[in-house]
Amino acid sequence: MDKDMEPSERVGDTHSFSAPSSKYDIVIVGAGPVGLLLSTCLARWGYKIRHIDNRPEPTKTGRADGIQPRSLDLLRNMGLKPDIMAFEPAKVYEVAFWDPMSSGDGIHRTGTWASCPSFIDARYPFTTLLHQGMIERVFIRDLNKNGVDVQRPWTIKGFKTDAEADADYPVEVDLEHVDGIEKEKVRAKYLFSGEGARSFVREQLKIGIQHKDPIAHVWGVMDGVVKTDFPDIKMKCTIHSEHGSIMVIPRENNLVRLYIQIASSTDKDWNPRKTASEEEVQNSAKRILKPYEIEWERVEWYSVYPIGQGIADKYTLDHRVFMGGDACHTHSPKAGQGMNTAFLDALNLAWKIHHVEAGFADRSLLESYESERKLVAENLLKFDAKYAALFSQRPPAAKDVAAATAQKDRNSEEEDNQFIATFKESCEFTSGYGVAYNPNTLNWSPTHPAQSSIINPKGHKLTTGKILHNSNVTRVVDANVVHLEQEIPLNGSYRIYLFAGKPSRSQKALSDFATNLNKKSSFLTTYLRPDIGSVSHHEKHNPHSHFFTFCTIFASKRPEIEISRDVPEVLARYRDHVYADDIWDHKVPDATAAAHAKMGLDPESGGVVVVRPDGYVGIVTSLVEGAGTVDALNAYFNSFCSKNISGHKANL
Amino acid sequence: MDKDMEPSERVGDTHSFSAPSSKYDIVIVGAGPVGLLLSTCLARWGYKIRHIDNRPEPTKTGRADGIQPRSLDLLRNMGLKPDIMAFEPAKVYEVAFWDPMSSGDGIHRTGTWASCPSFIDARYPFTTLLHQGMIERVFIRDLNKNGVDVQRPWTIKGFKTDAEADADYPVEVDLEHVDGIEKEKVRAKYLFSGEGARSFVREQLKIGIQHKDPIAHVWGVMDGVVKTDFPDIKMKCTIHSEHGSIMVIPRENNLVRLYIQIASSTDKDWNPRKTASEEEVQNSAKRILKPYEIEWERVEWYSVYPIGQGIADKYTLDHRVFMGGDACHTHSPKAGQGMNTAFLDALNLAWKIHHVEAGFADRSLLESYESERKLVAENLLKFDAKYAALFSQRPPAAKDVAAATAQKDRNSEEEDNQFIATFKESCEFTSGYGVAYNPNTLNWSPTHPAQSSIINPKGHKLTTGKILHNSNVTRVVDANVVHLEQEIPLNGSYRIYLFAGKPSRSQKALSDFATNLNKKSSFLTTYLRPDIGSVSHHEKHNPHSHFFTFCTIFASKRPEIEISRDVPEVLARYRDHVYADDIWDHKVPDATAAAHAKMGLDPESGGVVVVRPDGYVGIVTSLVEGAGTVDALNAYFNSFCSKNISGHKANL
Repeated sequence: MDKDMEPSERVGDTHSFSAPSSKYDIVIVGAGPVGLLLSTCLARWGYKIRHIDNRPEPTKTGRADGIQPRSLDLLRNMGLKPDIMAFEPAKVYEVAFWDPMSSGDGIHRTGTWASCPSFIDARYPFTTLLHQGMIERVFIRDLNKNGVDVQRPWTIKGFKTDAEADADYPVEVDLEHVDGIEKEKVRAKYLFSGEGARSFVREQLKIGIQHKDPIAHVWGVMDGVVKTDFPDIKMKCTIHSEHGSIMVIPRENNLVRLYIQIASSTDKDWNPRKTASEEEVQNSAKRILKPYEIEWERVEWYSVYPIGQGIADKYTLDHRVFMGGDACHTHSPKAGQGMNTAFLDALNLAWKIHHVEAGFADRSLLESYESERKLVAENLLKFDAKYAALFSQRPPAAKDVAAATAQKDRNSEEEDNQFIATFKESCEFTSGYGVAYNPNTLNWSPTHPAQSSIINPKGHKLTTGKILHNSNVTRVVDANVVHLEQEIPLNGSYRIYLFAGKPSRSQKALSDFATNLNKKSSFLTTYLRPDIGSVSHHEKHNPHSHFFTFCTIFASKRPEIEISRDVPEVLARYRDHVYADDIWDHKVPDATAAAHAKMGLDPESGGVVVVRPDGYVGIVTSLVEGAGTVDALNAYFNSFCSKNISGHKANL
Repeated sequence: MDKDMEPSERVGDTHSFSAPSSKYDIVIVGAGPVGLLLSTCLARWGYKIRHIDNRPEPTKTGRADGIQPRSLDLLRNMGLKPDIMAFEPAKVYEVAFWDPMSSGDGIHRTGTWASCPSFIDARYPFTTLLHQGMIERVFIRDLNKNGVDVQRPWTIKGFKTDAEADADYPVEVDLEHVDGIEKEKVRAKYLFSGEGARSFVREQLKIGIQHKDPIAHVWGVMDGVVKTDFPDIKMKCTIHSEHGSIMVIPRENNLVRLYIQIASSTDKDWNPRKTASEEEVQNSAKRILKPYEIEWERVEWYSVYPIGQGIADKYTLDHRVFMGGDACHTHSPKAGQGMNTAFLDALNLAWKIHHVEAGFADRSLLESYESERKLVAENLLKFDAKYAALFSQRPPAAKDVAAATAQKDRNSEEEDNQFIATFKESCEFTSGYGVAYNPNTLNWSPTHPAQSSIINPKGHKLTTGKILHNSNVTRVVDANVVHLEQEIPLNGSYRIYLFAGKPSRSQKALSDFATNLNKKSSFLTTYLRPDIGSVSHHEKHNPHSHFFTFCTIFASKRPEIEISRDVPEVLARYRDHVYADDIWDHKVPDATAAAHAKMGLDPESGGVVVVRPDGYVGIVTSLVEGAGTVDALNAYFNSFCSKNISGHKANL
């Protein structure tokens, strides 16, 4: 047992109670996707973590397995994508639909569609399918590198928030080994429940669950290696037949997952405890797949579980004890959104806790976790019902799928077609790129009260609260062609992209930006690193502040850019983040500066895009001569920062 | 000492002489790039290997560091690219030229050019720079997985080939621990020297060295971490100044390599033992780089070594004892070709030994190792001299570089410009894609005596003896967009690509191909796997034979292809190798079937491309109705196979 404890907490070879003085920045309960991503971020940023899980080891079989395109971007931004890909996951590019033949001779394919069609500008237009346990191991390895071990099998027995007992560590948590012998009381700044649908923390807090769709289902899930002549066994398939319906999901190592609905609350004899044996499900699958044959070489995992839609009323009561992932929202596994939503819950919370605890942001920033993520969960549940209906109503006509996936701009005729509209929406949703956070203090949409001609300049194509568009640019220092949106790793910093247009045109604006950035009490100078005098000249991302990284992108060819001449000193310090917007892009084939064009920024005068640490656009401004641009950013950061920037009032 | 020995050869805890009955398929001396790649291939294909190296551990610092684009393709084909990339190597996309300013105020940039311009269709248009020791470790890890350890520090003391003593294991090799105490006599089918320029084996065989360029040089090489305001420190640079010349090569982990020429045999006071201290070289670099400043934070490695061009007269005398890599050819480090040429030496030999020992090819196949690889080395040495001249004559004019790198077809005007012609040639050479093996029994060019209208069909754009063109296609079974040329791993098999055009047009030709392939004593049925009855249905590449993998590519959209209907049974068994040629390619923007177009094959009727196990095109044929196509392939394989295929005479 001791070996899984954090080194600093070891109490020798005998079992004993730790001193109640054990203090952590955060106690994380549950080492599934949501807990692990949160833990990984906070460990990298230097926080002291107590992470427990009541299972003796990581997931061995079964559970979630689909990584959507946007989540893969995130894993890449964390440097974890190669480790994921080393497992050689299956990649789903298309979904096939199978329906009964009118002749009664079994099923036939009625259509296919892309899982992430080309109208979505995804780096990785596929779903990555891999056993959850392998994904967990990738995170755990990273945690170990940063000195965090997941303590197993330990569980939470109680907790309370009591700021009077300890203002800095207000949360008291009772932890216990599942053997019931070893117990420990610890204090923490935060407690996070990533416990899954049956969250002890949620129950203790008496937080209710709302159901969007009253229909519950019993699902059977079987992972196995099969021998079959069914031609689409390596594709995602939705199969309807006279003998029932199944969903096929390919996996790594020749595995295939079958989902089969065993019972529904709409059945006359509905019984949420209805079950089916492995053999019954196999026989059912054999009937459904006729005229094709299927045999199992081995079954890796088989499970039957009832599931209904549900969403927690609150994600936190006191902004000290938080929940995320399945503890907050449950739904059908059909759209493969569980793990992905969990990842993004954790990401959203991680940097907000970081910014509050590092003294950058006002504590009220934490309120945006629930408001942003609960909306996403609500949309997910709505989508889940719509998606199911979309599939069950009728097989999509080939021409509709073709029209919907065509690589062209939307037009009114298409929009009239409800199927196509729903299809497009569902593709954006399932790919992860459809998530849009509502306007708030972080996301300054055109409706934000701080109206000025500098904020949200005319013509830009970004949406605050949505992810930054992809673009390819050339890094000036080494001429490497890079993915701009991936250039800053997930380091907890705001990403400030200065699209600087033509150097000849923007020279003064850039120089004025630098002058105002250097001024006392700008957003940058207010939050300089305490160790700024001793930062290595090799530091690429955070030479001045832990909260900002700057990129400068010129609408010029790389050889025309001379950093020492074209980039003001404060920005030139980020010499690895100076780029030439000189790579052709098939999405904007006629643009001379494709990245500027994709953002909708003028290739002459440019513009500034501030991206939150989690990759979502916060504010877009013009790049103007004078103090205007930095003033706008000062106002933006001042609206949620802990310190008073540049004389701004907090109520701006 | 014992711990590095191969388990089967352990002789207990006391030092003693092994029994002389120790027998291996091959003894490999030297664990640098050439020895390791050979060892890795043969270990994967099941051979028993004794691999020794006289160094106590892998390269710690210095030595080769550049992986050219074609070598990276190879490492990817071996599944080793992710491990290489995990070290985060530097990537060189451009070379910058710096020359003295006429004002005498130091150096200025006079031009840049792409290291692998877009007229070369490379997957990875950059040179990957990484310390040789890291590259060695990637191979060693793979070897260990296959049960091979490199025995260190052991050396070779003698060898002889004596078929009368043992016809199966004709080579006797004396091995010795460098401590001189432990000794061992082993027998092997082959001995390979990857010992480097000072090859004991080559000396024993009294094989001479020829020099193409009589000029020898003394080079200083320094790897270190620097602090500098020189703007191109992360680029490959050739710098000429009044104070001398240096070459800058960026590396992983902020390292930078400087090459500086210390002496040349053209100097009046030429002394091949001339040297320079670390400090002298640094001071020299400081003078050369003016007006920029440079300081060393640390020096990781510094070495001075004399080097001249040289090429061994023979690569083998008896086709049992072979040499490769620096043992066969040495040249200046400027073009970064040493390790890459070594890799390709090893690759060329590996599959030929395999095909002879596995009973597939006639022993005479081994003769093509020297004839193919020595020509490459000769070209390398010629190129090396030309390349040096190209750089020293004059800085390239910007317009010439622009014209040379322009992404358009060659035209006569450009060809007239000698600079551009040399530039293009040098880019092809340094990228690795320029290597072309001469016509021989493996490479059936239009000059091959077996003339027929089926062989080398009109219009095709492939060159036998050169690598297969890259293309993107959609895999039918799972709709994954894949790189066709990478779909078959380096498995020792011939890769037979059936570009099948339109199914409606090629149906009969494809069916006739299958019928004739199934006939007794076709090239396939002559070399079936002995265990063909028990091969798993999950086997993707070699269900029938260890020597052939088949791919079928239709000029159709993926949803239009139904494997069970369109692909004859014998080819359908390779169901993971059926593709739709439906991905747009910017190299052939107007083609409806880009892969067919890039190969120059008719999108209606297709054609067949046979690619050697090392990726070079062997023969291109039409895909015709009747027996013609299989007959042509039977004739091709019959020209070097061990068995009599389909009644063909060996002298065809």
